[in-house]
Amino acid sequence: MDNNSGIKPYVVGIDIGGQTTKMGIVDARGNVLAKNTVRTDTYDRVEPYLEDVKTGLTELIKEAGAEGLVRGIGVGAPNANYYTGEIANAVNISWSAKNGVTPFARLLSEKMDGMPVTITNDANAAAMGEMAYGAAKGMKDFIMITLGTGIGSGIVINGQMVYGHDGFAGELGHTCAVRGGRACNCGRNGCLETYCSAIGVARTAREWLETYPDEPTVLRGKIDITSKDVYEAAIGGDAFAKKIFDFTGRILGENIADFVAFSAPEAIVLFGGLARSGDLLRIPLEEAMNKNLLSIWKGKIKIVFSQLKESDAAILGASALAW
Amino acid sequence: MDNNSGIKPYVVGIDIGGQTTKMGIVDARGNVLAKNTVRTDTYDRVEPYLEDVKTGLTELIKEAGAEGLVRGIGVGAPNANYYTGEIANAVNISWSAKNGVTPFARLLSEKMDGMPVTITNDANAAAMGEMAYGAAKGMKDFIMITLGTGIGSGIVINGQMVYGHDGFAGELGHTCAVRGGRACNCGRNGCLETYCSAIGVARTAREWLETYPDEPTVLRGKIDITSKDVYEAAIGGDAFAKKIFDFTGRILGENIADFVAFSAPEAIVLFGGLARSGDLLRIPLEEAMNKNLLSIWKGKIKIVFSQLKESDAAILGASALAW
Repeated sequence: MDNNSGIKPYVVGIDIGGQTTKMGIVDARGNVLAKNTVRTDTYDRVEPYLEDVKTGLTELIKEAGAEGLVRGIGVGAPNANYYTGEIANAVNISWSAKNGVTPFARLLSEKMDGMPVTITNDANAAAMGEMAYGAAKGMKDFIMITLGTGIGSGIVINGQMVYGHDGFAGELGHTCAVRGGRACNCGRNGCLETYCSAIGVARTAREWLETYPDEPTVLRGKIDITSKDVYEAAIGGDAFAKKIFDFTGRILGENIADFVAFSAPEAIVLFGGLARSGDLLRIPLEEAMNKNLLSIWKGKIKIVFSQLKESDAAILGASALAW
Repeated sequence: MDNNSGIKPYVVGIDIGGQTTKMGIVDARGNVLAKNTVRTDTYDRVEPYLEDVKTGLTELIKEAGAEGLVRGIGVGAPNANYYTGEIANAVNISWSAKNGVTPFARLLSEKMDGMPVTITNDANAAAMGEMAYGAAKGMKDFIMITLGTGIGSGIVINGQMVYGHDGFAGELGHTCAVRGGRACNCGRNGCLETYCSAIGVARTAREWLETYPDEPTVLRGKIDITSKDVYEAAIGGDAFAKKIFDFTGRILGENIADFVAFSAPEAIVLFGGLARSGDLLRIPLEEAMNKNLLSIWKGKIKIVFSQLKESDAAILGASALAW
């Protein structure tokens, strides 16, 4: 332990994604003073990866003039466990996928001469970032839902991140939205993320194009439809594409109503690619949520979008862990 | 505040039900030293009711030799709010139903010469009781589900009761078990309690008797079927009644799997009339839960039944609030 930690004004945030690892030096107000990127996907073992992270961090700290002023490192990564400091079989991380459990927090701390390292999964890190610097500042009870390729979630109750008895709490993307519904990567059916993630929106488009062969839409004939295609069509006035957002928002709203019954949050904070759809998603979502809420909550639960700058959000989220 | 509170070895637990109010003096080990009952349903205003509660409590304290030794009073009641100390429009409590919001904790404390009073809803009180003295002793993360006439729930995360931003968290009986399903008293459809409460089991029996007019069962022709009738038929070997428990357990298990994805509890604690069905309910419940859990949790979440003596459980639960 370092007796000077009370006066160290900076933290490091590291966001480990499948392709790249982003890192940045952050101050207490959430300013990213310097940032940097190293590759994640060129390593099949963690040791050489950690060497590159160390090199990147050392440069970064020098660049920000933060030598001796960094309080700790926060890391957001898939399958990261806050309690154990481990990353376990993260399928999208090349050095983790086939190597079982990596004691990542300990290894990185050793590499960085004993600097404290705290890790959690990426959705929890995003929630920490919103609470420290973003849309959930000052809130003690909220649920963060990240609408990306999949759906992640971070739950905050009474000002504390919910980790559960084993560190794996907050898998709302894998609650059952439609009993017996679409097949999910997790091996089960009907998971929320098979409908309301970016991939879910694209799946709906492909299914509906087959189911309704006579409905006119600019999406017809497009190859490899993405949620961005559907978004652009809807913004351009395509009724078929707009109905896809109505459907997506309705399923998300119905399920959020059940999440509210669990923890009675002040707000739901949405983040990620699909959250940028704004009112296209928000209007049907709020309508379905309020229709499905108990009367004590109708009209009272806020739906807010992340306020963090997209390019910094992942670094900020991870850094918030280190305070 | 009382500076001697550290050495007061007893608390009072009060459980307010629609018909009767049970009260007891409890020690730190969960022994109920003396107990007492007053009517709840003979008052249309709270003031004379409180007078009777005071008389009852005063006798009780004298009987237990606990004068000056009571640290505080915990109250479990329908629609009670921990944060505000209020009971709001509790439909089954005659002095509350039509009187809007009653500042119950303050009124009772004044009546009892300033003794501290803490209130919460009955399901939360039950969870506190299990954590202090029962099946959840030593657990920091569990979900209590009370399977009575309706379904209540109390959620404990990291050793703390979950109240949410407004004090109303933990309405798992009103999460949607079947989209567009049975009409619920709350005005919506498909709520878990319309299927998996005592009333839900009786509803299933009545529905199935109509839907399957040729299925033989001892339940056919019975008037005003209750869940107890279904239980006795199932125990007696009636295949139709047993299928009702399989159906009830399956729906409960599927939905518990989603609750686990939220807070990753160590255990689910079941309490109430229907929980006494034992393996009739537990076996289909565990099977459906494990089938619907993410692989990280399969086979790892305990289903346990309350260990508190039925007649004392409500008093113990309420009393646990007062420590």
